[in-house]
Amino acid sequence: MRKRESCLASAFVVLVVAVCGLKVKSVKGVHVKYNTGAGIVPGKLNVHLVPHSHDDVGWLKTVDQYYVGSNNSIQGACVQYVLDSVVDALLRDSNRKFVFAEMAFFQRWWTEQSLEIQEQVKKLADAGRLEFINGGWCMHDEATTHYIDMIDQSTLGHRLIKEQFNKVPRAGWQIDPFGHSAVQGYLLGAELGFDSVHFARVDYQDRAQRKNDKTLEVIWRGSKTFRSSSQIFANAFPVHYSPPTGFHFEVDDSDLPVQDNPLLFDYNVEQRVNDFINAAMTQANVTRTNHIMWTMGDDFQYQYAESWFRQMDKLIHYVNKVDGRVNALYSTPSIYTDAKHAANESWPLKTDDYFPYADSQNAYWTGYFTSRPALKRYVRMLSGYYLAARQLEFFVGKTSNGPNTFSLGDALGIAQHHDAVSGTAKQHTTDDYSKRLAIGGTEAEAVVSSALSCLTKKTPGDKCEEPASTFSQCQLVNISYCPPTEKDIPEGKSLVVVAYNPLAWDRTEIVRIQVNDADLVVQDSSGNNIETQYLALDNVTRHVRDFYTKVYLGLSSDTVPKYWLLFQVSVPPLGWNTYFVSKGAGKGQHRVGIISATSPQNETTEIGNGNLKMSFSTSSGQLQRMYNSRTGVDVPVQQSYLWYGSSTGDADPQVSGAYIFRPNGAPPTVVSRSVPLKVTRGPLVDEIHQQFNEWIYQVTRLYKDKEHAEIEFTIGPIPLDDSVGKEVITRMTANMVTDKVFYTDSNGRDFLKRVRDFREDWNLTVTQPVAGNYYPINLGIYITDKKSEISVLVDRATGGSSIKDGEVELMLHRRIIKDDSRGVGEALDESVCIGSACQGLTIRGNYYLSINKIGEGARWRRTTGQEVYSPLLLAFTHEKMETWTASHLTKATAMDPGYSLPLNVALITLQELDDGSVLLRLAHLYEESEDATHSTLAKVELKKMFNGRTIKEVKEMSLTTNQVKSEMKKLAWKVEGDEGKEPSPVRGGPVDNSTLVVELGPMEIRTFTLKF
Amino acid sequence: MRKRESCLASAFVVLVVAVCGLKVKSVKGVHVKYNTGAGIVPGKLNVHLVPHSHDDVGWLKTVDQYYVGSNNSIQGACVQYVLDSVVDALLRDSNRKFVFAEMAFFQRWWTEQSLEIQEQVKKLADAGRLEFINGGWCMHDEATTHYIDMIDQSTLGHRLIKEQFNKVPRAGWQIDPFGHSAVQGYLLGAELGFDSVHFARVDYQDRAQRKNDKTLEVIWRGSKTFRSSSQIFANAFPVHYSPPTGFHFEVDDSDLPVQDNPLLFDYNVEQRVNDFINAAMTQANVTRTNHIMWTMGDDFQYQYAESWFRQMDKLIHYVNKVDGRVNALYSTPSIYTDAKHAANESWPLKTDDYFPYADSQNAYWTGYFTSRPALKRYVRMLSGYYLAARQLEFFVGKTSNGPNTFSLGDALGIAQHHDAVSGTAKQHTTDDYSKRLAIGGTEAEAVVSSALSCLTKKTPGDKCEEPASTFSQCQLVNISYCPPTEKDIPEGKSLVVVAYNPLAWDRTEIVRIQVNDADLVVQDSSGNNIETQYLALDNVTRHVRDFYTKVYLGLSSDTVPKYWLLFQVSVPPLGWNTYFVSKGAGKGQHRVGIISATSPQNETTEIGNGNLKMSFSTSSGQLQRMYNSRTGVDVPVQQSYLWYGSSTGDADPQVSGAYIFRPNGAPPTVVSRSVPLKVTRGPLVDEIHQQFNEWIYQVTRLYKDKEHAEIEFTIGPIPLDDSVGKEVITRMTANMVTDKVFYTDSNGRDFLKRVRDFREDWNLTVTQPVAGNYYPINLGIYITDKKSEISVLVDRATGGSSIKDGEVELMLHRRIIKDDSRGVGEALDESVCIGSACQGLTIRGNYYLSINKIGEGARWRRTTGQEVYSPLLLAFTHEKMETWTASHLTKATAMDPGYSLPLNVALITLQELDDGSVLLRLAHLYEESEDATHSTLAKVELKKMFNGRTIKEVKEMSLTTNQVKSEMKKLAWKVEGDEGKEPSPVRGGPVDNSTLVVELGPMEIRTFTLKF
Repeated sequence: MRKRESCLASAFVVLVVAVCGLKVKSVKGVHVKYNTGAGIVPGKLNVHLVPHSHDDVGWLKTVDQYYVGSNNSIQGACVQYVLDSVVDALLRDSNRKFVFAEMAFFQRWWTEQSLEIQEQVKKLADAGRLEFINGGWCMHDEATTHYIDMIDQSTLGHRLIKEQFNKVPRAGWQIDPFGHSAVQGYLLGAELGFDSVHFARVDYQDRAQRKNDKTLEVIWRGSKTFRSSSQIFANAFPVHYSPPTGFHFEVDDSDLPVQDNPLLFDYNVEQRVNDFINAAMTQANVTRTNHIMWTMGDDFQYQYAESWFRQMDKLIHYVNKVDGRVNALYSTPSIYTDAKHAANESWPLKTDDYFPYADSQNAYWTGYFTSRPALKRYVRMLSGYYLAARQLEFFVGKTSNGPNTFSLGDALGIAQHHDAVSGTAKQHTTDDYSKRLAIGGTEAEAVVSSALSCLTKKTPGDKCEEPASTFSQCQLVNISYCPPTEKDIPEGKSLVVVAYNPLAWDRTEIVRIQVNDADLVVQDSSGNNIETQYLALDNVTRHVRDFYTKVYLGLSSDTVPKYWLLFQVSVPPLGWNTYFVSKGAGKGQHRVGIISATSPQNETTEIGNGNLKMSFSTSSGQLQRMYNSRTGVDVPVQQSYLWYGSSTGDADPQVSGAYIFRPNGAPPTVVSRSVPLKVTRGPLVDEIHQQFNEWIYQVTRLYKDKEHAEIEFTIGPIPLDDSVGKEVITRMTANMVTDKVFYTDSNGRDFLKRVRDFREDWNLTVTQPVAGNYYPINLGIYITDKKSEISVLVDRATGGSSIKDGEVELMLHRRIIKDDSRGVGEALDESVCIGSACQGLTIRGNYYLSINKIGEGARWRRTTGQEVYSPLLLAFTHEKMETWTASHLTKATAMDPGYSLPLNVALITLQELDDGSVLLRLAHLYEESEDATHSTLAKVELKKMFNGRTIKEVKEMSLTTNQVKSEMKKLAWKVEGDEGKEPSPVRGGPVDNSTLVVELGPMEIRTFTLKF
Repeated sequence: MRKRESCLASAFVVLVVAVCGLKVKSVKGVHVKYNTGAGIVPGKLNVHLVPHSHDDVGWLKTVDQYYVGSNNSIQGACVQYVLDSVVDALLRDSNRKFVFAEMAFFQRWWTEQSLEIQEQVKKLADAGRLEFINGGWCMHDEATTHYIDMIDQSTLGHRLIKEQFNKVPRAGWQIDPFGHSAVQGYLLGAELGFDSVHFARVDYQDRAQRKNDKTLEVIWRGSKTFRSSSQIFANAFPVHYSPPTGFHFEVDDSDLPVQDNPLLFDYNVEQRVNDFINAAMTQANVTRTNHIMWTMGDDFQYQYAESWFRQMDKLIHYVNKVDGRVNALYSTPSIYTDAKHAANESWPLKTDDYFPYADSQNAYWTGYFTSRPALKRYVRMLSGYYLAARQLEFFVGKTSNGPNTFSLGDALGIAQHHDAVSGTAKQHTTDDYSKRLAIGGTEAEAVVSSALSCLTKKTPGDKCEEPASTFSQCQLVNISYCPPTEKDIPEGKSLVVVAYNPLAWDRTEIVRIQVNDADLVVQDSSGNNIETQYLALDNVTRHVRDFYTKVYLGLSSDTVPKYWLLFQVSVPPLGWNTYFVSKGAGKGQHRVGIISATSPQNETTEIGNGNLKMSFSTSSGQLQRMYNSRTGVDVPVQQSYLWYGSSTGDADPQVSGAYIFRPNGAPPTVVSRSVPLKVTRGPLVDEIHQQFNEWIYQVTRLYKDKEHAEIEFTIGPIPLDDSVGKEVITRMTANMVTDKVFYTDSNGRDFLKRVRDFREDWNLTVTQPVAGNYYPINLGIYITDKKSEISVLVDRATGGSSIKDGEVELMLHRRIIKDDSRGVGEALDESVCIGSACQGLTIRGNYYLSINKIGEGARWRRTTGQEVYSPLLLAFTHEKMETWTASHLTKATAMDPGYSLPLNVALITLQELDDGSVLLRLAHLYEESEDATHSTLAKVELKKMFNGRTIKEVKEMSLTTNQVKSEMKKLAWKVEGDEGKEPSPVRGGPVDNSTLVVELGPMEIRTFTLKF
C-alpha cells in the first residue's frame, strides 16, 4: 500500500525541497491485476462505462484519410489504429468491451486483416465484447436524409455484420446527428429491431427541462400511425457523448491518469475515486433508476485504445474496491438498456421528433437543412437512380465481373453521414463525397445501359450476354449537357429514346431533350408521330452550361444546344417504352412556331392549358392566384425571393454558418418587387421565365395533364461584395388563416404537425423567431385552412418554415462569409473557379406547387413525391427505326401486363443480393387517416408483380434483412400514464405461400427476401 | 494491384467531381503480409532503421509525470505507454526491433509488469529484438556531471540489465546531450565496453565540415593517456536524432503514411518509396561505406508504437521490393556498428572532445555549464555523501529492512540526466529532482548515523544491532543551520563530534561548527584541550540563514547562532576521530579575543600565517598578489566580480537562456572597483570579508597549514529591476603570458588543453568571442606561463574560460529574463518566495585558488580536488565525555593502522551489492606525464585496505560491473594515418590472488567485486 515517510527537508543553499515524498525502491514488483469483471450490482449506483470511438465517415478529412491517418495536419485521426488497438486491448483483458458503429470504416479495416485477426475478432464479437451498435455504413444524418437512403445504408452495414459475424445490432447509436427525426425513432429504430437509441444532441432548453424532470430517458413513439407498436427506449445524454469532465484518456490528453503505483510520486487513487463518485452522483441526480451510462470516448479516440482501457481498468478496480456506493462496470448500450428494462420503471412518453436542435439561444442548427444544396440534390438524384439501377440489375441478373451497383450503394451509404449530405464537411471532403458518387453513378450507369440493351433485345428467353451497352445516358442533363441528343442524327437513323419507369405504376410524362435541329419529328413505338414542342434554351441556361462544362469537363469550346424538344411519353410500371426522334421532311418548318413568347396587354397574364391555371400581374410580374378548374380550389397567392443577411455575431458572437442559421435580425431583403414576365405557351407546357435579379432566374411550368406547377430556380452566384452572407429563400404567401400550423415531412415519409413558436415537450422561450421555426424538408411542406391546402414538394433536402400565417418558405441556397464555430473551420462559401477566376456556386432545381381541397392534398403529395424521387430514366442510342423495332422490344413491363401496384404502395427496393436471393421492400405511402381512400390496407400480388418468374420462397425479414421478421424480439416498456387503451394500428397479415399476396397497413414497410 | 478506372465526371448542377478515382469493393480481402526480414545486403545501400524513443528523465515534466503520462497539458508524453506498446508491437512481428536507453523509466515499468509480460520481454531481449543501449539510469549530461556520478548511474542501469536480462549494452547512445566530453568517449565509452557511441549534437561548423569530408563517423580517442587503447567508434548524426523529414510516424503526426490499399483513394506506394530513396541517397552522400542509420524516433515517441512500426514495415517491404538500389532493414546501433566494422574502412581520428556545442552562430550552449548553480552544488555535495554513506553501509553491513543508500543512488542517477543537473529543466521538475535528492539524502543520513553509532561502539566483534542512531548531522550547515551544535550543551555533558574521513588518506583539517556559547573548550579523543578559534557570524550569513530557514523549513522565529567555533581535526583514512566540545570554566573569557577585525593603516594588507600569503590594497580592497614562501612562487593577481548582460536578441533573435550563453556584446560590468576590507586573523584561519555590492559577498580564507585560498562567495538575489539578465563571473587576472592556452577538466578527471578562438578539428569562425570560448569545469581550471601555474578548483559544475591571456573566469550564477527557445519554455529566473514576496535565488559556494611552480600544480589540484569532493563527514551527539570514551572507539580506521592508499590513488567506490559481494573501484588520479612523481604505476594492497577481513575472492569487472573484465571483447578499428607506433600506456597487471596487490597505471580505474 501507499507508503509515506516523514522526511526532513534537506537543502543546500539554496534549493527548493519538498519536505515529504515517496520512495522508489529497486526492482520490487508492484504489479496489480485489476479486477474489472464487475457485472451489475443491484442496490448500488451502476456506472456503465461504454467504450466507444466516434468516427465520422468524412468531415474535416475524407473517409479514406480518416481511415489511413493521412492529412493529419488538419486533424490527428486514424481509424485504422483505433480498430487495431482496440482489438489488442480487448485481447489483453477479457473483461473489456467496446462498441463500434461505422461500418464503412470497419469494412475498410476488415478487408485488410489476416485470417488470424479476423478469427480473433469474430470471437470477440461472439463474446459480446466487440459489439456493433447502429451498424449502418455511417451514422446517418437525420434531417437531410431520405428514408430510403437511411434504410439502404443501414442495410449495407447490417448485412456485413450478419454475414461476417452472424450478429444483429440491438442499439441505435445516433450520438452526434444534430437533432433526431421521427422516422429515425420508429422506422430506423423500433422497426429495425433496435431496443434503444442513444444520442447527445437535443435542444438546450429541452435538455435543461429533462434534466430537471429526470426525463432524458423516454419511451419514444415517433409514429402517429404505429404509436406504441413502434416505440423505442430513447436515451438523451445529459451532457455530450464524451466522458464526464476529467475522464478523457486519449494519448496526450491532459486529464489526470489514475496513478496507483505507491513507489512513484503523485499517487492519486483516492482523489480519482472521489472524482469518479462525484461525477457519477451528479449524473445519478438527473437519471432514473440506479443505472447511468458514461460514454467513454469521443471523436476519433482510442487511437491507442490501451490509454483508455488502462485508466478504466483502474477506475473500475479502485472504485469498486474503495467505495461502497458505486459499482463501475464495462458495459454496452445493450447491456445498459436491458438494465433499464429490468428496473421495471415507468418511463415518460415522447412523441414526434427532436427538431430543431439548438445548443444555445442563438445557435439553431437549422442552416444545414439547406447547406450545400448541390450536394444534397446530387445525393437525392443518385438515390433515385440507385433504386432504378438495382431493379434493372435484378432483371438481367447480377454479373460477377462486370460493373455493378455496389460502388454507388457504397458512395451513397457514405454520403448519408451526418457531415456529408448535411453539408457540414470541409470543401475538400465534400469534393470527395461527390467524387465517390460520380464514380458509383458512372458504374451504375454502365449497369443500367447494359441491362437496357439486354432487356430491349428480342431474345427474352435467353440470358443476355452482349458485352457492352450501346446506350448513352445524360447525368448532366440539368446543365443541358447531353451529347447523344445534341449531336446530329446520322442520315437514315433515328435517335432512339428508351424511357424506363422505375415506379410500379403506369406513368405519362412530358420529357425534354436538348437538340440543335429545329426540324425533328418524334414517333412512338408504333410508328405514330406524336406531338412535340420546341423551346429555345434561355440565356441563363446557356451560361450555366457554358461555364460548368468548362469547369468540370474542361471543355474549352463547346456548342450550346439551341432547343429543348418536348414530347409526351407513356411508360408501363417497371417497364419501358421507346420513342424515335428523326429529322423532319420540311426545313425549318417548325422553327417559326416553336417559341411563342407572348407580351400580354392585359393586367393579368394567365397560363395553363389544363385544369390548373396561374395568374400573374402583367405589370409587376407577381404571381397572384392559382385556380384549379376541376376541384374549384382558388387561392390568391404571391411568390417571391428574399434573402436573410447572415449574422456575423453581436453581443453573442454566434454567427450563421454551415450548421447554424442565424439571420442578422433585419427583415429579409426582397429580391425584386417587379419582375418582367416572359411567357411561352405551347401544346405540352406553358412557361413563364422571370429574371428576379442578376443571380436568380425562375421558370414556372404548367404541363398539360398535370395539376401542379413545376418551378425551376437557378440561383447564384450569390454576391458577397457587400460582405453580407446571404441565405436565399423563396416564399409563397397565401391568403389563408393557418393558426401558426404547418406540416413538414420526416425524412420524406411521415408528415409532422409544426406549430410556430411552440414545442410539445416544453415551454419554449423564443430567441430566434425565424431560425427556431425552421424544420427539415425532404418531401414537402404544406399549410391548410378550412377549405384548402397549399403543398410544396422539394427535389432535395431543404430547410423551410411558415414564419407567418399563410406563408410557406423554403431556403434554397446559402453563401456565408464566416465559420460558425462548430468545428468545420470553413465558411460555407462554395465557389467554382476557372483558373484563378472564382465565383459562387450556382444551383438549379425544382420545387412543385399544388393547391388542393382540404383533405385531398395527400394524394398529390404522395404520388408526385414518388415521381420526383424516381424520375423516368432516359437512355439514348442511334439506329434506323425499322431495324430497331424489328429486333427490339419497344415497350414492355416486368410485371403482369395490366397489373400495377396500388397507388398507396411503392416499391422501394428491388435488388439481387450477393447470395442470389432478391430483396424486395414495399412501402405503404399513407399514414393512418391521411387520405380517405388510400389510408387503408393495401394488397400487392407478388405473382403478378414478378411476371414470368416462379417464386420459390418468400421470407419476411427485418427492415435491414438481417433477421427473420417473425424471430425479432422486442422489449416491453412501461410508459407513464399509458393505459394501453389506444387502438392497434392496421398491419398486413402473414403472406400466404400459395396466394403470395402482401398486405400493407398505413405506413407499413415490409421487407422480403425472395427466391425464384 | 492498383486499379485505376477511367470514369466520367458526373455532376449535378453544380458539383465538384474529380474525373477519376479508385473504387471500394465489398468485403474482398487485401491483407498484405509485409516482408520485413531483410538483413544486410552487400552491394546495396543499407538503410538501418533504428526504432527508438528519446525519453528524458525529467525535463518539462518530472520523471514520474513522464512515466505515468500525467501533466500532459505541458507535454503529451507517457513512457509507460511507450514500453507497453513497443512490447506489443515487437510481439506482433518477429522482424521488428527496438532500442531503449533510459533505465530509470524501464525500472518503473518493469516493476509494474506481470510475470507473463516479464517473461515475454526477457525473450525479446534474448532475441536481440529489444536491445538496451547506453543503459544507464538516464542519458547523462556530459558537461556538468562528475565522472563518479556518471559511473554510478551507468552502473545502476547496467546492473539492472544484467540481473534481469543477463545482457550487456554494447552501444553508447548519447543522442541528446549538448556536446560530448572526452571522459564520455573513452571512460564511459570504450572503458565501459561500448563499441560505439552515437550522438546528434555537435557544433554546426564542425558538422558542416564533417558532412563535407564524410568525417561524421570517426574513431574517437578521448584520452591522452590511453590513446588507441581506449578508442571508440563515434557516430555524429548528419541532422538530428529524429528520422529524415517526412518519416515521422507518431499517432497524430502529419507525415504522409504509406497508403498501400489499392481499394482506397490516395494510394502512394511509389511516391513514398521515392521519398525514401531520395532521403537515403542524400544521407549516403555524407556517409562512408554503404551503411546509413536512420534514427526512427524522437522525444517520447512510440506512445502507440504500432504507428511507427506499421509504416516502417511498409517502407521496408516496398522499398526492398520496388527499388533495387536500396536495402532497408530493422537494425540497432550494435548491428550498424558491426556493419561499419565489417566494411574494413579506415576512419578519421578524433581526439579531445566535442565542446563547446553551438547550433548556430550566436547559440553557444555554454550557459548551462552554470545554470542552476544551487542544484549543481546539491548534486555534487550528495555525490560525495553517497560515496561516504556507501562505505559506512558496507562497514556495518547492509540491512534488508532499514534505510539504505538506494534512494540516494536512484535520485543521483536521475539527477545526472542531461536536463537535470544541466539546469535546463523547468522549475517544477528541478524541484522534483531536489525533492528526490533530499529524500535520498535523508535516508542515507540515517544509514550514516546508524553505521557510525554501530562502528564507534566498543563491541567490534559483534554485529551491530541497535535500532536507531543517536547521531545528528547537518546537511544545511551552509546556511548555518545545525541545531545539534547550536543548542545549549546539557550540564555535565559534551557535544560529541565524530568526524569521518571517506578518503583513504590521512587528513588534517580545520572544521567549524556554529555555536551560541562563547566559552567553549574542545578536547581531542585523548582528552587534550586543542586550539580553537571563534568567528562571529557575519550579517550576510545571518540573513541567509534567517531567510532560507523561513522559506524551506517554515521556521517563523529562529535564533541565529552567534559564532563559528573552529578547531583542527585529524582523521585516519576510512576512519574517524572524536572531539568533545564542552562548556568552559571561565565566563565570556574567550569572547574578547574571538574577533580580531583589523583596520590597517598600511597601503597593503597581508593575510596568511602559513606559507601562502595574500596581499590586498588597503584602499581599494583589491587583491594584489599571492606569494608562497615555501615555493617562492609570487604572482601579481587581481580578483573581481563582473556580470555579462544577457542578450535579448538583435538582428539574430537568439537570447541568452538556460542553455545558451549569449552576452549582449557590451563589456562585462565590473561590480565594484573599491571594496572595503574586513580582516580577521586568528590561530587557525585568517579571513577577509568583502561586500562587493548589495548582492555579492566574499570571504577569503587562508587556513593554517593549507597552501591555497578558500574563497566563499554569496551571490544573490541578482537584481533584475533594470530588465537586464545578469550572468555573474569572478575573474582572476594574473600578469602571465599564457598564449591563449588554458586547461579545463573533463568531468572532473582528465585535463584538456583549450586554446582560445581555436578548434583542433576545423578552422573556427569566431562569432561569439566570449561564449564560444567557455568550457565546462567540474574539477578546475588552470593557466600557466613559463614559471608558474594558477589553478582554481570548483565545488560544483561551473562554466569558465580564459578570455584574455593571464585571466581565468568562472561563471558562478545567472539570472535571466527570457527563454532561449530550446524547448524548456521558461526563463532561467530562479526565485524564492515567502508568501507572495519573491526574490532571486541566493547561492553560496567556494572556489579554491592556488599558485604553484610550473609542473607542480597537479599535485595540489588532484589532492585538493579529492578533499573538496569528499569532505569530512561530521556527526553530533551529546554525552558525558568520560562515559563516551569508556564505551566507544574514539578513533579508528577500517584499514590496517598506518596504511593508507598512495596519494595518486583514490577509492571511488566501496559498496555492498545486493548479492552480498562488494564493489570496489580504485582510480589513479594522474594522467600520463602529469606529475613527475605521481604519474607512475601505483599499488594498492587490498589486504591492508580491508583490515580484519579475509578476502575470499577478487574478480576484476568492467567499469559498471556487468561483465568480467577479462571477457570483454573489443572491435579493432583502422584509423587513417595511424601507423600503430605510439607507445602502449602503462596499465596495472592482473591481481595476484595471494598478494592481492592492485596496480594502477596513470588514469586507470579498476573495478572489482570482492567476497569476504
